[in-house]
This record gives sequence, C-alpha cells and structure tokens, in this order.
Amino acid sequence: MSERIDPWGSTQIKDYEHLFKEFGINKITEEQKKFFDHRLFRRNIVVGHRDLDKLIEALKNKKPCYCMSGIASSGKLHFGHKAILDLHILFKKKGAKLFTGIADIDGFVSRQKISSLEEAQKYAEDNLTHALALGIEPEDIFVQSNMNKRYYSLVFEMSKHVTNAEMKAVYGDIDFGKVSANFLQYADILHPQLFEKPMIGTVPVSFDQDPHVRLTRDLAKRLPYKMIPPGAVYPLHQSGLKEGKKMSSSEPETAIYLSDTPQEAADKLKRAFTGGRDTEQEQRKSGGRPEICKIYEMYRYHMEDEKKLSELYKNCKSGKMLCGECKKICIEFVTKFLEEHQKKFKKMQPIAKKLIYGKS
Amino acid sequence: MSERIDPWGSTQIKDYEHLFKEFGINKITEEQKKFFDHRLFRRNIVVGHRDLDKLIEALKNKKPCYCMSGIASSGKLHFGHKAILDLHILFKKKGAKLFTGIADIDGFVSRQKISSLEEAQKYAEDNLTHALALGIEPEDIFVQSNMNKRYYSLVFEMSKHVTNAEMKAVYGDIDFGKVSANFLQYADILHPQLFEKPMIGTVPVSFDQDPHVRLTRDLAKRLPYKMIPPGAVYPLHQSGLKEGKKMSSSEPETAIYLSDTPQEAADKLKRAFTGGRDTEQEQRKSGGRPEICKIYEMYRYHMEDEKKLSELYKNCKSGKMLCGECKKICIEFVTKFLEEHQKKFKKMQPIAKKLIYGKS
Repeated sequence: MSERIDPWGSTQIKDYEHLFKEFGINKITEEQKKFFDHRLFRRNIVVGHRDLDKLIEALKNKKPCYCMSGIASSGKLHFGHKAILDLHILFKKKGAKLFTGIADIDGFVSRQKISSLEEAQKYAEDNLTHALALGIEPEDIFVQSNMNKRYYSLVFEMSKHVTNAEMKAVYGDIDFGKVSANFLQYADILHPQLFEKPMIGTVPVSFDQDPHVRLTRDLAKRLPYKMIPPGAVYPLHQSGLKEGKKMSSSEPETAIYLSDTPQEAADKLKRAFTGGRDTEQEQRKSGGRPEICKIYEMYRYHMEDEKKLSELYKNCKSGKMLCGECKKICIEFVTKFLEEHQKKFKKMQPIAKKLIYGKS
Repeated sequence: MSERIDPWGSTQIKDYEHLFKEFGINKITEEQKKFFDHRLFRRNIVVGHRDLDKLIEALKNKKPCYCMSGIASSGKLHFGHKAILDLHILFKKKGAKLFTGIADIDGFVSRQKISSLEEAQKYAEDNLTHALALGIEPEDIFVQSNMNKRYYSLVFEMSKHVTNAEMKAVYGDIDFGKVSANFLQYADILHPQLFEKPMIGTVPVSFDQDPHVRLTRDLAKRLPYKMIPPGAVYPLHQSGLKEGKKMSSSEPETAIYLSDTPQEAADKLKRAFTGGRDTEQEQRKSGGRPEICKIYEMYRYHMEDEKKLSELYKNCKSGKMLCGECKKICIEFVTKFLEEHQKKFKKMQPIAKKLIYGKS
C-alpha cells in the first residue's frame, strides 16, 4: 500500500527514464531538491537536468549565472505556463540572473496561423503582462523584436556554425521558417553570455525541446566567444483538464487561462476529469485516484501549502472527501489566484506596452 | 570590316543571349539607351533587364520608384564596383530613390574568411567611404547591421515563404550561412516597398546573381504587402587586368583598387594585358585589338568622353598608337581619378563611421 502512495507523482518519472538514458539527461537528485526547497522540485515536477550542479555551485559561491526561458507569443498563457514562470522566479530568488524572452519573432515565423509580426506582438503584449503579474520583473525581460543589432548578428552568425545535416538529424525535414525560429532560440539562450560574460546558465525546457538544448550546447563551443555550454532543467508539463489531453493554448476546455474569469474557470473545473469512482458508494469504499485526477494535479502544480496538499490527498484516497467537495475547494483556490492575478495584470499593462513598443 | 568595328563591345552580348532566353531576361532596347543617355547604356555595358520599361514609365511620370544594390563588405572596392555605383547614381539622377545597402552581416555570414561582425564592419566602413566619395549620398545608404527591427522581422518572415525545395532548385545545396545571406539580400531588395510603399524598383546585378532576383520577384508576390516584383538591370562585369582573369577583390594584380596609390595603379596598368601585336611592325600594319584589351576596357567602362574614346579606338585599330603610349594615357586618366577620389575619401571618413557605428 505504501508503494502506491504517491502524493508527489514520482512514478510518472519512470515514463521518462528512457529519455534520460538516450540523451544523457540526468535525474534530479535529493541534494538538488534540498537546495531549491520548492514545490516544483519536491513534488517531482522538475525531473531531469543537465549541468545543474554547475549552476548550484555558482549560486552557492555567488558567481554570475543565469536562467533563460522564452515565452512563445503565439497564444494565451495558462496554468502550465505559470508553473514554468514560477520555476523561473525560483532561480532568480536563488541568485541567478533572469532572461525571460518574449519570442514574438519566433512565434511569428514558426506558426503559419500568425500572419504578421503585429499579430505576434499582440500575443507578446498579453503574455508579457501575465509574466509581469506573476512576478517576473521588467529588468528580467527581453523582447526579440526589440533586441539590438548584436543579437541579430548573433542569430546570423550561428547559421554559419550549424550544418544542414545536423539540423536534419535533430529536427527532421523542417522549413526555413522553423530553421529561423531555431536560430532565434539558440540566440535567446546564448546571448546573455555575449552581452555580459561567459557564465553557466540553465534553461527550463520540456523534454521535447531538448534538441534545442543539445544543439545550443554544441554551438556554445563552436562560437568564438568562450561560452559555457548552458545547462537545462526539465519540468513535466501540467496535463489538460480533459482525459488524455494536453493543456493547450488553443483548446479552451483543456486549460485554465490566466485571463479566464473566475466563472469560466469554475465551469471548466466542474467539467474536469477526476479520479472519482462510478458511484458514491464505491468511492467511499475504495477512495479516489489523485494520481490520475486533473484537480489534484492542479493542486500539486500550484498549491504552495504542503500540509494542505497532503490532507487533500489523504482525504481523497481514504474516500472521506468526494470529487464535488474537492472541486469546490479547487474552484476557491483558483478563483482567489485569478482575482489577485488579474488585478496585478491591469497594473502591469502599461509596463508591458512600454517594453514591447517603447523602443521601436 | 564595319561588322568588326565594335567600339562599344556589343558583340560581347552574344555570349549572354542563351541566358536571356533561358531565364526570361530582356535585351536593352535602343529606346531605353536613349532614355538613360549614359556611357554604361550606350556602350553595351548594361545589356539586359527585367521590367525596365515599368521603371522608365514611373520615372517619366515622376511616380515613386527605386534602385537598390548592395555592397558585399568582404573585400576592397575596385573599378568594377565603381562602374556599378556609377550606374546607381545614374538612376538617382533620373529620379529614382536610392537604397545602397552596406551588407556587413551578409558579408560576415556568407564568407568563411570573415570571422566576426567587427571584421565585416571594417570592410563595410571602407566600402561605404568609397561609395560616398563616388557620389552616393548619406541619405541613400542603409547598413544591414544598423537596420531596425522591422527589417529583421522581414528577413525572418520571408523564411516562412520559401521552401527548401525552391532554395535547392535555385542554389543547389548551400549551408545555413548562405541561406541567411540570401534572406538578407531579399530583404535588402524588398524593404523599400515595406518602409515606404509598394513601387517598382530595379536592382543592378550580374547575371550570376539572377537567382536572387527571380526568387525575390516571387517573394514580392507571396508576402502580404502588395509589393511590386522588382525589376533588374544586368551590367557586364569589367574583366581583370590579366588575361582570362576576373577583376577580383582578393587578387591585387587583376584590379585597380579605389585605394591604390597612383604608383600602384600605374605599375598594374603597365603589366596589364593588351590587344597589342607581337612586334611594333606588325602592330603598325594590322593595328591593335581593343576588343580584347584591358586598357581599352578601362576606358570603355570609365571614360565619359565619347569623342576621346572613339579617337583612342581608331588610333589603336589603325596602328597609329602603340600600347606604351596608350598605357601612359590610361595611367594619367586613372591617376587623376584616384587623386580626386582619395581626397573625397578622406572627407567622407567621419560620415561613413557615423553611418556604421553611430546608431549602435
């Protein structure tokens, strides 16, 4: 029975172990979890890394180091994005310099649905405002379309150092729009070392973004700037509210958007997939299944309070609490967050506008 | 005999007629020559075109139109470049808006020998100073590395509209550095229509650059900006001073550089290949062969005075003037040009520096 108690979802990691072996990604260690002392590490949401000990070493010795991640700017932000930005803020709290990239050009060139830079910038403005409301600070932001010529020439310079065969081996056959987006991403990751100085960095990415990381690490060695190959951390994506669905910017039913009204969020949570049993009687007897429940996943990804999380878990597993009651608690939790967040969002709007359009 | 008299090199055009047919390039007409009334048209140096009548139509009706060409910024400028810039200035005199691109990023990404943007910018500064000394005005200049974000996003946007198969069909297998350079060139050609308004333009290019023109014309139609496919004019390159050699930035003996001292230029001209005969006696009898003579080519490309050119031609063909005397005249002509040009060059240095580095 204790084997099956898994309030932090560590069994899920097993699904990824083949990736660890195949690509040389390392598992997060207990020491690393202790160092960060944060729900996303404790609860096995961040599961893998490259060179994280080098970053921790720099953080411990107060040496310069950085965390970079990009916001794709091609759709609405949801709670899955919030988790990544929370992780980002954690690195800053620990002492890393943040580079949060608003990837408006990337979003524009890599997605056929976005037909102009202006359209990408509308998403960028929205996404950036949310990031600021979540606690990313203006000085941590860079906007691709507002970068200086040194950034763009780095993008072009990198294109000299990657062969067609390599790009094909990593990504298969991709069009030039995607190739451009790739080079922009490599520049996003590496430019802090050119603009400031060579230093270890980390990039929070999902496993499917690992090709970028591998190629960027190679590029760091090929460029004539003595860059240090950046490390990475791999958080698992929060899954969709519907069974078997990803949390997606383009499928409203799968995600709570950071811009949803509390009513919209409540309606989605009411319709969310849970680990409940077919009848009340059965659930009272066998308990719920938080390990497959989207409501419990919302708690696990976003509720800071460990005690409360454990309690929710136990009350579910024991059959003491049914899904209806639990959803009510989740709706309250999400409502409280959204109300506060959306107040901050309004406050941040002029700052975001200035960051996107101010320097044009 | 009259068939063989060819002071303006029109027989040379025959070598290119297959290109006209294969790629749909048109021959320059007598009407077009009359309109421009310039040595480069009269002397069959500009031999082909696309949509030149549309440009002439705009010029006649004082409608907006433009001429764009780029300076590659990867080596020294020579008299061959001067001819192209003279052509450029002609279009301005006739009423077209000029866009002379200093292609420093292009030079950097497309040439393995240039290892940093700083190195490319040194060439760019030199090349730009010469362009200004030749009469291109500061307001006609744009520097790739100093362009605004709208330009860069156009470069990236275009990458969405060209398939790998098309690029391969036009250029064969090329690396990403060259791909980047291509997209930069397309943006150089088309950005005036985005920054100002859709209008007919012309691009002076050599035949081997025609793939760029064809793809750029297609791109103009694919982009969502109602651009007008730009036309082109095809001047023949001035050939090298040595037999069978191109005039090259990297082979000093083939070219008079705009930065050569009069002494250096004189030495190269003395060693230049001529159409002279084996003996004085033979030359007095049969005359020289201006049609293969590098000295005569220098006159044909650069000497404004039609009467003087005809005289030189006749005196050569008749055997009246030998190569030594003719070279002396050429040395005087080139020396006079270089002395005046290099004075202007010094005056233009601060302006060029400001254009390249001023906005960084």
